[in-house]
This record gives sequence, C-alpha cells and structure tokens, in this order.
Amino acid sequence: MSEIILDTKKKYDVVDITEEVVKIVNNSKVDEGTCFIYVQHATCAIIINENYDPNICDDLLDALDDVVPEGKWRHDKIDNNGAAHIKSSIIGPSETIFIKDGKLMLGRWQNIMLCDFDGPRERKVLVKVIKDEM
Amino acid sequence: MSEIILDTKKKYDVVDITEEVVKIVNNSKVDEGTCFIYVQHATCAIIINENYDPNICDDLLDALDDVVPEGKWRHDKIDNNGAAHIKSSIIGPSETIFIKDGKLMLGRWQNIMLCDFDGPRERKVLVKVIKDEM
Amino acid sequence: MSEIILDTKKKYDVVDITEEVVKIVNNSKVDEGTCFIYVQHATCAIIINENYDPNICDDLLDALDDVVPEGKWRHDKIDNNGAAHIKSSIIGPSETIFIKDGKLMLGRWQNIMLCDFDGPRERKVLVKVIKDEM
Repeated sequence: MSEIILDTKKKYDVVDITEEVVKIVNNSKVDEGTCFIYVQHATCAIIINENYDPNICDDLLDALDDVVPEGKWRHDKIDNNGAAHIKSSIIGPSETIFIKDGKLMLGRWQNIMLCDFDGPRERKVLVKVIKDEM
Repeated sequence: MSEIILDTKKKYDVVDITEEVVKIVNNSKVDEGTCFIYVQHATCAIIINENYDPNICDDLLDALDDVVPEGKWRHDKIDNNGAAHIKSSIIGPSETIFIKDGKLMLGRWQNIMLCDFDGPRERKVLVKVIKDEM
Repeated sequence: MSEIILDTKKKYDVVDITEEVVKIVNNSKVDEGTCFIYVQHATCAIIINENYDPNICDDLLDALDDVVPEGKWRHDKIDNNGAAHIKSSIIGPSETIFIKDGKLMLGRWQNIMLCDFDGPRERKVLVKVIKDEM
C-alpha cells in the first residue's frame, strides 16, 4: 500500500493525482492487475473524470454546491462542514481501475482526482496494487 | 464471504455496521489485504462517512430527499418507491477498504453505514476479505 | 480482462449489461471470487439497480437531469456536454460484485447497467474476474 500526501489550496478543491498513481503502478512492476484508490477523509472523495479541460472540475464543484448548499445542516452547529460530509458520502471515497501490460487502464479522457470539500488541508490518499493470479 | 443481517427501523434509516465489519476482518486473520462491502438491495446503499455526530446521517437523508423528492416517479405507480431506487443508484451498493497490520484502514472520522431508503425491513450486507499476495 | 462493446441509442441511455457480465463470469470458471466492472468513458457511469421495471432507469435519467440541468456549465463552451461529465463524476465508473458457487451475487432486484449521458455512441465496458485465494 502506498500513500499520496498533498496540500489542497481552497475550501473546495479538485487535485489531479493521476501522475502519482501512475508512478505507484509503475513501481509495483505489476503487468496485469487491479489498482484501488482510497481517501481516508470524511469530507473528501475520489472521482475519475476529464481534466484536460479543468473547467469540468469547477463545474462539478458548482453543481454539488447547487445541490447541497452550505449552512442549512444539523452538523453545521458542531463543525460547520455539513455540506462537505454530504457531498463526500454521495461521491464516495474509493475507485477501482484495471492494469494491463503494466498500464493503468484509464480511458483517454479519464484522470483521477481528489475532491476536497472542506479545505485547505493536508490530505492523504491510499493506493494499492494487486497482481492478477495467472 | 460473510453476511451481516440487520433490521432497519424507519423508512429512511442509516445503520452503522463498522463494528460488524471489523469483527469479520479480525476473524479472517488477514494482516494485509482488502475488504469489500456489498448490499444486495436495490433500495439501499453503502456509505463511508462520519458517525461520531449522528446528525450527519440525518443531514444526508434530508439532502437526498431534497434532491430526489418522493412521489413524482414513473415507478411509483408500480411499487411506490421510485425515489429509493434513484438514491440507491446514485450512491451505489459497494465500497472497498484496505487492511494493514490486521486493521481496517478507515480514517479517524470514517465509519461504514448501510442506508435504507425504503425501510423498515430485514437487510443483508455481504463482506469479503482478500489477502494480499506477498 | 474482458470487454463489452455496445452502441447506445439516445443522448441519455441506460443499457442493461447483466447478461454479458454473467457470460464473462461463466467463461472464467471462477467459483469463488470477485467481479469488477469499469467504464472507460468520462460521460458514462455504471449503476447496479432494478431493471425489471425499466421505468426506474428513465426515472433515474430524469432525476439526474433535474439535479444537473444542461446548458449552464463552463465546459459547454468547449464540448457542450458539461452536464454529462458532472453526472458521470457523481455516479462513478466502477462497481464490484462477488461470485459464489460460480454465480454473480446480485440481489434479486439488481441488474448491472451502463448509463450514457452523452450518446448515442459506441461504448466499451471492461470486466475483470479475480479468483479467491483458498
């Protein structure tokens, strides 16, 4: 299991971690296998989508803010981040991607991103590579 | 593969199953591996989030009810639970968590919860633990 | 790893791929294991839900269109499919299902579906079956 440690920069932030995940897959020397990604924070989530146009990440953050507005939740009285917990629950902390011929099988327009809904903070993403039994 | 059987108590209910999953991981004697959780019901979902403040679970249920209101769906004419199916589809039935040194690698503020959007009923959650190849 | 190639028919389309996934599981001859499903497109997603009443799929598409309306996103200026990317990010590209006694452990009311939010197009779904270590 490997770790990616990073600092998010804003309250709502999307950070592309594709390059770091690819490095972990390369270092694993696994040719045929599966890669699991997991974020250990209850106000973050992992998405796989396009980042060639980074506007997509901003559009996603806006859409989630429309759907789950800030400031109207029971938990806000305790920690003032109720919306962040709801967004994280909906999107989820884990993703699974295949490895073939040593290459992460992302689609042409797919990158791996950490979403932070309660930044800026230091955040940790766990990555595990499993080799296929032959 | 292990099963967790439980009774939900309300139409919308969130039940913390972390303790049961931890027991299954402990019984597996797996030190380094991966734990998969899956719910076999089309009106339930699995989330990983905070439950130290249980208000977060109620906030999530309210948010989903705002976003997917009851009573306006084609399927309601057949089974009167269209909203429950939509919510389950959006959140999803499976989650993946790592095991290290025999310990489930949840974050400090992460618990595992079954969401029922069409209770109260008896519900079943499947859990599988896979050992890493060394 | 196997591939399912299919043509979606409409801009918003949900295609049931359960039968194709079951065939792949049968061909794998794996009795006890895990099946992973992954879609390589940033405007698609995989859901597991009921399709006995296909209205549920239409209800889901309507609900997502209510929540993430077309035509108001930054990315629309570039590719006119911002809403599709947001919906795909929220639902996600991967699902995990167990195999027991050679059978995919879907619930009685669960099918596996590809959602296309930017069709009609040729789409590809990847499926991997892993055998449990005994």
